Amino acid sequence: MTFGLSPHAAGLLTRLRRFIAERVMPADAEFLDEVSVGDRWELTPKQVEILEGLKKQARALGLWNLWHPEAGGLSTVEYAYMAEEMGKSHLAPEVCNCNAPDTGNMEVFHKYGTPAMKKAWLEPLMAGDIRSAYLMTEPQVASSDATNISLSCVKSGEEYVLNGEKWWATGAGDPRCSVYIVMVRTSHKGPRHEQHSMIVVPANAKGIEKLRPMEVYGHDDAPHGHFHVRFTDVRVPLEAMLLGEGRGFEIAQGRLGPGRIHHCMRAIGMAEKALELMCERSLERKAFGAPLAELGGNYDVIANGRMEIEQARLLCLKAAWMMDQGDARAAAPWISMIKVAGPEVALKVTDAAVQMHGAMGVSQDTPLARQWTHLRTLRLADGPDAVHRRQVARAELRQYRKPS
Amino acid sequence: MTFGLSPHAAGLLTRLRRFIAERVMPADAEFLDEVSVGDRWELTPKQVEILEGLKKQARALGLWNLWHPEAGGLSTVEYAYMAEEMGKSHLAPEVCNCNAPDTGNMEVFHKYGTPAMKKAWLEPLMAGDIRSAYLMTEPQVASSDATNISLSCVKSGEEYVLNGEKWWATGAGDPRCSVYIVMVRTSHKGPRHEQHSMIVVPANAKGIEKLRPMEVYGHDDAPHGHFHVRFTDVRVPLEAMLLGEGRGFEIAQGRLGPGRIHHCMRAIGMAEKALELMCERSLERKAFGAPLAELGGNYDVIANGRMEIEQARLLCLKAAWMMDQGDARAAAPWISMIKVAGPEVALKVTDAAVQMHGAMGVSQDTPLARQWTHLRTLRLADGPDAVHRRQVARAELRQYRKPS
Amino acid sequence: MTFGLSPHAAGLLTRLRRFIAERVMPADAEFLDEVSVGDRWELTPKQVEILEGLKKQARALGLWNLWHPEAGGLSTVEYAYMAEEMGKSHLAPEVCNCNAPDTGNMEVFHKYGTPAMKKAWLEPLMAGDIRSAYLMTEPQVASSDATNISLSCVKSGEEYVLNGEKWWATGAGDPRCSVYIVMVRTSHKGPRHEQHSMIVVPANAKGIEKLRPMEVYGHDDAPHGHFHVRFTDVRVPLEAMLLGEGRGFEIAQGRLGPGRIHHCMRAIGMAEKALELMCERSLERKAFGAPLAELGGNYDVIANGRMEIEQARLLCLKAAWMMDQGDARAAAPWISMIKVAGPEVALKVTDAAVQMHGAMGVSQDTPLARQWTHLRTLRLADGPDAVHRRQVARAELRQYRKPS
Amino acid sequence: MTFGLSPHAAGLLTRLRRFIAERVMPADAEFLDEVSVGDRWELTPKQVEILEGLKKQARALGLWNLWHPEAGGLSTVEYAYMAEEMGKSHLAPEVCNCNAPDTGNMEVFHKYGTPAMKKAWLEPLMAGDIRSAYLMTEPQVASSDATNISLSCVKSGEEYVLNGEKWWATGAGDPRCSVYIVMVRTSHKGPRHEQHSMIVVPANAKGIEKLRPMEVYGHDDAPHGHFHVRFTDVRVPLEAMLLGEGRGFEIAQGRLGPGRIHHCMRAIGMAEKALELMCERSLERKAFGAPLAELGGNYDVIANGRMEIEQARLLCLKAAWMMDQGDARAAAPWISMIKVAGPEVALKVTDAAVQMHGAMGVSQDTPLARQWTHLRTLRLADGPDAVHRRQVARAELRQYRKPS
Repeated sequence: MTFGLSPHAAGLLTRLRRFIAERVMPADAEFLDEVSVGDRWELTPKQVEILEGLKKQARALGLWNLWHPEAGGLSTVEYAYMAEEMGKSHLAPEVCNCNAPDTGNMEVFHKYGTPAMKKAWLEPLMAGDIRSAYLMTEPQVASSDATNISLSCVKSGEEYVLNGEKWWATGAGDPRCSVYIVMVRTSHKGPRHEQHSMIVVPANAKGIEKLRPMEVYGHDDAPHGHFHVRFTDVRVPLEAMLLGEGRGFEIAQGRLGPGRIHHCMRAIGMAEKALELMCERSLERKAFGAPLAELGGNYDVIANGRMEIEQARLLCLKAAWMMDQGDARAAAPWISMIKVAGPEVALKVTDAAVQMHGAMGVSQDTPLARQWTHLRTLRLADGPDAVHRRQVARAELRQYRKPS
Repeated sequence: MTFGLSPHAAGLLTRLRRFIAERVMPADAEFLDEVSVGDRWELTPKQVEILEGLKKQARALGLWNLWHPEAGGLSTVEYAYMAEEMGKSHLAPEVCNCNAPDTGNMEVFHKYGTPAMKKAWLEPLMAGDIRSAYLMTEPQVASSDATNISLSCVKSGEEYVLNGEKWWATGAGDPRCSVYIVMVRTSHKGPRHEQHSMIVVPANAKGIEKLRPMEVYGHDDAPHGHFHVRFTDVRVPLEAMLLGEGRGFEIAQGRLGPGRIHHCMRAIGMAEKALELMCERSLERKAFGAPLAELGGNYDVIANGRMEIEQARLLCLKAAWMMDQGDARAAAPWISMIKVAGPEVALKVTDAAVQMHGAMGVSQDTPLARQWTHLRTLRLADGPDAVHRRQVARAELRQYRKPS
Repeated sequence: MTFGLSPHAAGLLTRLRRFIAERVMPADAEFLDEVSVGDRWELTPKQVEILEGLKKQARALGLWNLWHPEAGGLSTVEYAYMAEEMGKSHLAPEVCNCNAPDTGNMEVFHKYGTPAMKKAWLEPLMAGDIRSAYLMTEPQVASSDATNISLSCVKSGEEYVLNGEKWWATGAGDPRCSVYIVMVRTSHKGPRHEQHSMIVVPANAKGIEKLRPMEVYGHDDAPHGHFHVRFTDVRVPLEAMLLGEGRGFEIAQGRLGPGRIHHCMRAIGMAEKALELMCERSLERKAFGAPLAELGGNYDVIANGRMEIEQARLLCLKAAWMMDQGDARAAAPWISMIKVAGPEVALKVTDAAVQMHGAMGVSQDTPLARQWTHLRTLRLADGPDAVHRRQVARAELRQYRKPS
Repeated sequence: MTFGLSPHAAGLLTRLRRFIAERVMPADAEFLDEVSVGDRWELTPKQVEILEGLKKQARALGLWNLWHPEAGGLSTVEYAYMAEEMGKSHLAPEVCNCNAPDTGNMEVFHKYGTPAMKKAWLEPLMAGDIRSAYLMTEPQVASSDATNISLSCVKSGEEYVLNGEKWWATGAGDPRCSVYIVMVRTSHKGPRHEQHSMIVVPANAKGIEKLRPMEVYGHDDAPHGHFHVRFTDVRVPLEAMLLGEGRGFEIAQGRLGPGRIHHCMRAIGMAEKALELMCERSLERKAFGAPLAELGGNYDVIANGRMEIEQARLLCLKAAWMMDQGDARAAAPWISMIKVAGPEVALKVTDAAVQMHGAMGVSQDTPLARQWTHLRTLRLADGPDAVHRRQVARAELRQYRKPS
């Protein structure tokens, strides 16, 4: 088991770190300030300029599509270090074309897409010209058990017709978002995990309404957003079906593994950033005659932050290493573990950093509050904690069960 | 030690509970939806209608100013039950003229105000005609140690001149907010707790700028708001000084005791509401073939919620009972205890309720996310947890210290 | 809801507190030191002298059988204060004839015993002349689900014949232990909660073997002890059956309610004692130039201890108050709550006190380590935490379930 | 960063694992049962037979002195895997001559001993012919701040004369324990960390009294033991001084690094064993109609155990890897981190396993209770948690402090 970097990866990491620290982070606040200018769901000229400028630089520096094994030339372990860095900046993941849900969607097109899909969607996504969304969870059912998913998809002549609602369509607010991958129910018969399918729908298909932006603890995350969407007789050609009817779960598994772990890698980066802000603040501010760092239990708070981050990062690296071994089934419990542990630690450290900042911590004056709300969604997205803990427990118990 | 209600109080509680459940709660969402209509910092005609209509009803039912010992005829213990009910609704505290920071400010005017102040500010506040703000914390210093407070207040002829910045002026966004009570520094000499003073400043005084609304995890809490305010050569007459120079801490102590406990009482109400929503959701939603309630550790989650709420409520009642005994010094550690324990429990139960709701929990579709962000500020407002824990520990150790 | 004491109870409490502090506590260590003298399972002459001397004093002071509503003249709430005091001393419960499992057994004889049983067992127990044991849990089954209990009891002519094993027969090591109340299975048919019975067996009945003392984290708790016992064709007359066959659970419920709460009351006393020892130690010992109290997070540790004890005590008083209202079914969730919360808090505070004492804390030089091991068993005895949490959750959810 | 094993190490691990599972573990209970036969502080013939037989086997299999870099040919990372295995068995560390405090003492002799000391003590220790103790902590001072240590050591002619008390002299009960390494105070002047020294004292030196065995939650850990020892005019030659007066802390640092991490490695092994026992129990036992594993929150308990063990193990491996890099100062915070995290996780998992076992868990019928008490001491031995957390925090903050 080795968590080291190849010389190629080490060089990339150095470059990436500098690029993010010197170019991307300074632009984060400026970009976010523009959100309230004009229509929240349009990019302002300044936002476009910032974003496209940085994307061009990222490309030039070879920091583009690093998530992609071939494009980046990185193992999952190596990519973990990159994703951690990107997690420290609001813009960095998009700037490097490594942001969710696009990476997952590109992976789906890459693995399961037809040549036509690759041409139409994968290429512009890889180029950063368009964005995409992934429509899974629904308002009317407990999506933690994904067999509940109910958006109806019925064959009608040469087309499929979709009806129903999805919400939390992350990224659907972005005007550049051009394509949705949608989990649908194509059957009510047969094995529970073979009644669902995944289908590709252009974002501008007739019959799609964006009902409203969902808020995350009050944030609408414009212009990216998380939309509540209604499908009314939305029609797509038969070729839009991925792999074939009933194979939705197979695709979801393939898609979610890397996606989950990328979120966790970035969460580690956010935790590091929170710890950094917390340390700086604890040395700057004084109360009762001493820097905050030296008051009460603050050493414990800082030490716990460091200890928990280290452990979560190592677990994340091990999960990545397991994925690199090529046995998805063996790696699954490790992904579940880090899916639970990563956000948990990052939330805890971020919350402690908020407290160290006093009232400033809950405000817009640090990235902490926003970061916390994003991290909080990770305990629900792609399977809530309880479901992942159950997976871990079942894997653990399997080795003790008597063969029957 | 008795936590019971007099027949008068019991009658009030029944009436209050019904009024809030039947009239106020149903109006909460409608009122909040109006916030995004027009200028966020103006009340829309509909908001005015809702609010004033409910206020009239509250008055008619004798549910007005219950926080005030004489007006309400309630002990602190008895008021705790009322405040808990009000905590369950967004509008209820204001509808019953029991909301922060007005109650604390009214108390200050009542105890320390001149007859002119009582006429000018206390009477319209008691009548619900105006609102007020309390300006304590500052961006440049660690206000957890309030001796750091630095807004300058210098005598100049027949006036005081104020210069500096305050933030988190809660309620200052409301167009009806007419008066500020401001903690200022009037001296840099003498005992540390005698260099500060409290002074009354009309909200429309020349030289006051509302720089920007502070956000709480993205919420601006419009139209109430929490403002960052700048004072530039703001002039008030000498009579605006409360009690006299150097007595700021004395007033702050008198003000904060009841205020802190009122927040905690309402926090218990929020926790109860979260538990209620969590239970309902856990029975409604199904996954893996069973209601969520019966899956995994959810019984534990619900039981822990119930157990922790009960304990926090009892502690709150005991703190209230201590206050009713009339010895403020003896009651102080109890107020510190509940100041820590109340928000902690309410946050925990609210977070668990969020998790039980899945993605809906973090959204605008339940009051949980907003409630969480409000509760989170209570771990900082009126003294951060660490300062209150220190107070509790020092009181505890005092009895073991050798007399020297 | 009132948690106050009548003048009678207040007087008793004052007397009890002084008696325990001045007479009983000083004898604790002396008594325990004698355990290793001679046969651990006999009382040494010195132990007899200490114990009987103190019992005589307790009787003379009217501090005898306070647990018994008529003998003590106390409500459950009032008794809670007494039990808390007794919890602070190893010997006090026995000295005041208030110790487990005797009080529970006396209650069974009182409520369900025949006149002959009252004469033979209840009278000498009330007089402190004999001791008793309660045999419930078994090594071969998960006794958390008491319907698993399997010790066989079969009618044979004019006798019942018992066969099987019990363990954790607390008190069975005491040479004065004369009688066992035994939960047995008398049927394998009918409703699950009507297959078990409770029967009275003299400790010296033929066929009973004390196989071995069970250890609690290494302590055998001699001479009291917790024994693993085997029944081989043990015969008792038909009249030994309590209430009638199949009514074991009915009796167990009546027995366990008060017993559970008494344990919790004493646990609160242990927590108080731990906090006291912790505070004293934190002021006495110095490291890095300051008393431990002032180092790192120790204020937080002390404050948390105080806050959690207060909350647990109030919950315990409320559970007692619920019992005093006379509706056992309504009180049940409260007993479950305190059954979980009491030991949890007491364990936490005791563990923190151990840590504050350094290596001394884990040793025989303070009562902390022994106290911890005893408290740890309370998370299992009379139903493990998980079972009680489930009861609390089910009671909570009941109010939300749709009537079917 | 690589946590892999060389082929040599991998082979050793396979052999060690099998040897412990098949030979050593089955002997554990038998050995411990003998403790109560005859004098607890003598080895019975059967104990000698078991121990010496296994030691001979370990030697023959090349599983002897693996802790020693040269003897074992292992890196610290590689040894971590071995130590984890040994942690699962009571006897294994001694059987493989890898037990505390002997390894630390051998290291001291190896690094700092004179040729005479190596001949007299190191050789027989390496051969497993004698045992040793390390006398650091004292009853009268807070040894968490080791500058408090006060056992007096005064030069008198050609000898040093020692007076004072030590306690928790682990291993001093063993009749084969022949030599003590003792931390003493040789000066009251000069820098705080140069007033102490380390000196070698034969266990049978005149003037040494073993006052009493210290108990750990009731266990005396005979025949190994933890003794309270008094030195009265104990005389040793000047050559007994290690390195020279005033260099005690220098030696202690060199000694404690590896020792601390070895404890943690074994703690991980104990945690694994607890998880294993917990899983087995949860599948075997039934309550309410299902295996315990499927009831309530037990999946969460098991999953948390697995997740926390994985993280702690990885942190331990990283600390080992840091040590292998050869920069002791850089590795120090990592050792502090694992010193806190290792026992914490192992205690938590062990406690959860106790709970899953019901009353059996607290008894002598599983290794869990004993293991818990041992693990609990690790939160105090070699520096309490708070001191290590402080070290971690200080290292963290160092990078943010402005150079002055």
